[in-house]
Amino acid sequence: MKKNRNDLFRKQLYVIIFRSDTPAGKLFDLALLVFILLSILSVFLESVASVRARYGHIIHVFEWLFTILFTVEYALRIYSSHRPWRYVFSFYGFIDLIAFLPTYLSLMLTGAQYLVVVRALRLLRVFRILKLTRFMYEGNILRAALRASLYKIVVFLTSVVTLVTIIGTLMYIVEGEDSGFTSIPVSIYWAIVTITTVGYGDISPQSPLGQFLASILMIIGYGIIAVPTGIVSVEMARATEEAKRKCPHCHHALHSPTDKYCAHCGTRV
Amino acid sequence: MKKNRNDLFRKQLYVIIFRSDTPAGKLFDLALLVFILLSILSVFLESVASVRARYGHIIHVFEWLFTILFTVEYALRIYSSHRPWRYVFSFYGFIDLIAFLPTYLSLMLTGAQYLVVVRALRLLRVFRILKLTRFMYEGNILRAALRASLYKIVVFLTSVVTLVTIIGTLMYIVEGEDSGFTSIPVSIYWAIVTITTVGYGDISPQSPLGQFLASILMIIGYGIIAVPTGIVSVEMARATEEAKRKCPHCHHALHSPTDKYCAHCGTRV
Amino acid sequence: MKKNRNDLFRKQLYVIIFRSDTPAGKLFDLALLVFILLSILSVFLESVASVRARYGHIIHVFEWLFTILFTVEYALRIYSSHRPWRYVFSFYGFIDLIAFLPTYLSLMLTGAQYLVVVRALRLLRVFRILKLTRFMYEGNILRAALRASLYKIVVFLTSVVTLVTIIGTLMYIVEGEDSGFTSIPVSIYWAIVTITTVGYGDISPQSPLGQFLASILMIIGYGIIAVPTGIVSVEMARATEEAKRKCPHCHHALHSPTDKYCAHCGTRV
Amino acid sequence: MKKNRNDLFRKQLYVIIFRSDTPAGKLFDLALLVFILLSILSVFLESVASVRARYGHIIHVFEWLFTILFTVEYALRIYSSHRPWRYVFSFYGFIDLIAFLPTYLSLMLTGAQYLVVVRALRLLRVFRILKLTRFMYEGNILRAALRASLYKIVVFLTSVVTLVTIIGTLMYIVEGEDSGFTSIPVSIYWAIVTITTVGYGDISPQSPLGQFLASILMIIGYGIIAVPTGIVSVEMARATEEAKRKCPHCHHALHSPTDKYCAHCGTRV
Repeated sequence: MKKNRNDLFRKQLYVIIFRSDTPAGKLFDLALLVFILLSILSVFLESVASVRARYGHIIHVFEWLFTILFTVEYALRIYSSHRPWRYVFSFYGFIDLIAFLPTYLSLMLTGAQYLVVVRALRLLRVFRILKLTRFMYEGNILRAALRASLYKIVVFLTSVVTLVTIIGTLMYIVEGEDSGFTSIPVSIYWAIVTITTVGYGDISPQSPLGQFLASILMIIGYGIIAVPTGIVSVEMARATEEAKRKCPHCHHALHSPTDKYCAHCGTRV
Repeated sequence: MKKNRNDLFRKQLYVIIFRSDTPAGKLFDLALLVFILLSILSVFLESVASVRARYGHIIHVFEWLFTILFTVEYALRIYSSHRPWRYVFSFYGFIDLIAFLPTYLSLMLTGAQYLVVVRALRLLRVFRILKLTRFMYEGNILRAALRASLYKIVVFLTSVVTLVTIIGTLMYIVEGEDSGFTSIPVSIYWAIVTITTVGYGDISPQSPLGQFLASILMIIGYGIIAVPTGIVSVEMARATEEAKRKCPHCHHALHSPTDKYCAHCGTRV
Repeated sequence: MKKNRNDLFRKQLYVIIFRSDTPAGKLFDLALLVFILLSILSVFLESVASVRARYGHIIHVFEWLFTILFTVEYALRIYSSHRPWRYVFSFYGFIDLIAFLPTYLSLMLTGAQYLVVVRALRLLRVFRILKLTRFMYEGNILRAALRASLYKIVVFLTSVVTLVTIIGTLMYIVEGEDSGFTSIPVSIYWAIVTITTVGYGDISPQSPLGQFLASILMIIGYGIIAVPTGIVSVEMARATEEAKRKCPHCHHALHSPTDKYCAHCGTRV
Repeated sequence: MKKNRNDLFRKQLYVIIFRSDTPAGKLFDLALLVFILLSILSVFLESVASVRARYGHIIHVFEWLFTILFTVEYALRIYSSHRPWRYVFSFYGFIDLIAFLPTYLSLMLTGAQYLVVVRALRLLRVFRILKLTRFMYEGNILRAALRASLYKIVVFLTSVVTLVTIIGTLMYIVEGEDSGFTSIPVSIYWAIVTITTVGYGDISPQSPLGQFLASILMIIGYGIIAVPTGIVSVEMARATEEAKRKCPHCHHALHSPTDKYCAHCGTRV
């Protein structure tokens, strides 16, 4: 009998913690989101020197409160889960764990407390919580397009890395240490800053030959941005196409999720 | 009788102020555009220290003249409108109001007078005035494409914000305060500057590990610009396509030039 | 008789100067290209202080030689042309004129001699000279796509200019003169530098609120680059489609200019 | 008999060195990759002043070991190849040669040793070694799309170079030497830095007119990035499409999945 009541409690806990289709479950998830946001905010504030000087103690207390809260939540999740190990080794299980570990680590390791911003990853639950199937649908198309682009993008990135290595080294030889090109790794860093069109300007070529080489690198970078864009556009178009609903009669793709008739054969769908 | 004449006057006023298909209406709208441009120019000039020193008084007078003019215009618009409240709470009604409010506010609040540049929004009328239906048509396609991309772009931006938060924090830990990464919010600001390839260079990593992390962030930023571009391209292609043919029965746009049935009501076209 | 010989000479001159399908015409055009390149190079060199100090006199002499050469060429073009006025008021006629005018202007106006780099525009003839019909074909597709995108891009740019005006003014109020935001025009300049992701860093926000506003502007700029790209991609796809050859039998578009058979009905084309 | 054994040895060597479908061949290729990576790493490390000061001698010894290793490998490749000259003049033969030449050159020429980073090009073998035919396939699509875009991109780049020359010169006249625009070539370098949205900020306009011109250049640069992107997107879509089906008779790729005849030989498919 007691086992049964225990089971019932676990089941209720499961519905509250893991699902969001009951009022209690929704409330739990919303409260969780608020706590996550507050705890991230407190980490941000603690890192600002002037705030830390005045409110450091209070923030510290809050930080530990949030950590204990998330630890308890993690324990309850394991307890109420049907298959605890499956949860522990799942994507969200891992994120839930690293959301409170850094605070404990900070007892031994200075600076570790800032790592709790990985809690930001927990905010990704927001889509699940709000039951936004539309977001899931769009997210799936995005993911499908990116996965389909993967091979082409690996080929592209390998070429970029090779190019950046060679031009970075050339610039090291041409410019020398006076212009800030102090070593080949630094020159490669500069080449990445340039080819991605970020252009900090902390290191920039001074000699005419260096500026000429840099100009070529910039124009290449300006041009080849077109390549990943072209890849993703094509795959996105295909993924959008494939995600379409099909007509049950003529198997022609439907144009939008809200269509009521097949545009090809007029069948009601 | 007097009421009738009054009514006629209001009707004429309405045609002049709200419409632009009569010579008087066109003249009114053009004059308005010129006054808006002049008043924005005067705000620009007032902000330049050397000009303010010499011509500050004259500019000030002009600023009040423009403000009174726009206030009178606003009153006349309410007076001549059929449904005044509908105008007041419309998009353009709101813009017309905030176009002169800041000057009155500046009597109490220093700096508020510069806010009158929101008048720039009134310039958007130019498309309506020039009766450029072509522009309306193209603007609608643009808007449709952006609205259709909305969900995907929200998913995309959420991922970018999460990424920027985590890498910003890592950089704060790695680089420390000497390189300008004085707090986590500042580091996140730097991460946004970097991932969007703006790259001011006021803050830039100095340590090898920081430069390595920054390189990864740059390459990610360089690569994922492809994602919104791909999204918008695909939606733009679809919106352009959809803007083409309409169903003769329900006036719902047909999806493609080869459709044989309206996808909305099933009518053969 | 003399008139006839004169006519013949003009005709021959016309073939040499205006056309490039005879050996003499080709030689003339190639020589012209070389002279244009040399004259641009001499302008470049004159602007370098160290070179000007040593070789200024020689460069000056060459500059005048080139100018006289181009003046004579212009006179001969007018003389040999069938319809001189048509040439004078044509695009190339105008470019040919402004290619030598600045040197004469420099007698009265210091600095005007550098304007001769507009000669670079004359280099665009290279496509015509090399008879690269393929380039003409591709250039036409590009031009058609850009012309078709024009309306959408005007709508887009108007929105960007409005946005930049308002955010520029906000930053002027928020940041003030200490951070380099010395006037509204300068702040708008900064907003353009930011939204286009150029990011010089000569002016950059220092206050938290300013950095927050700047972050939003950057993310907007990062996102809306997708808009012109999407526009041009769609129009480019359409222009490429429309430029295709059609099958004489079934009017189905051919896939490439080198196809020998219609892919739809198998007709030889 | 001896010749036969010699032949057998050469054959075995060929299989090990040139192919990667036997365990020995795979091992050889993997070991080679590791050595290439290590040698590149040693070049990187040597360029860092602090590392060179302490470990310069050891790195030097390693550098020569790697060079001798690659020289021996090159000799063995020539020896075991069926058609040695064909290998020598092939793309990979050339890369294999320039991978060790710079070290010998460095005996006479200071700085030449850094050129060995061209070894990075040898890493491109990784795709061949891992037998990733998928990568080859995707690489081919990328290459086909870029080749098809070539003409359009040449037209585009010619326009960009002309624009940059003219605006660079204008800025030299407008800004003068005080703002860093010391000569026309330097101003053109600045214009490239700006139009590609890199924006180092080492040179930036100070006068109102210069900032106005720069703003126009930035907006142009921001807008025309759409052009190469549009070009590549369209060609990428076409190349992906074309890579799909082949004609059973002439093995020419079919243009679209709906083609009924091969566009090359007219065979029905």
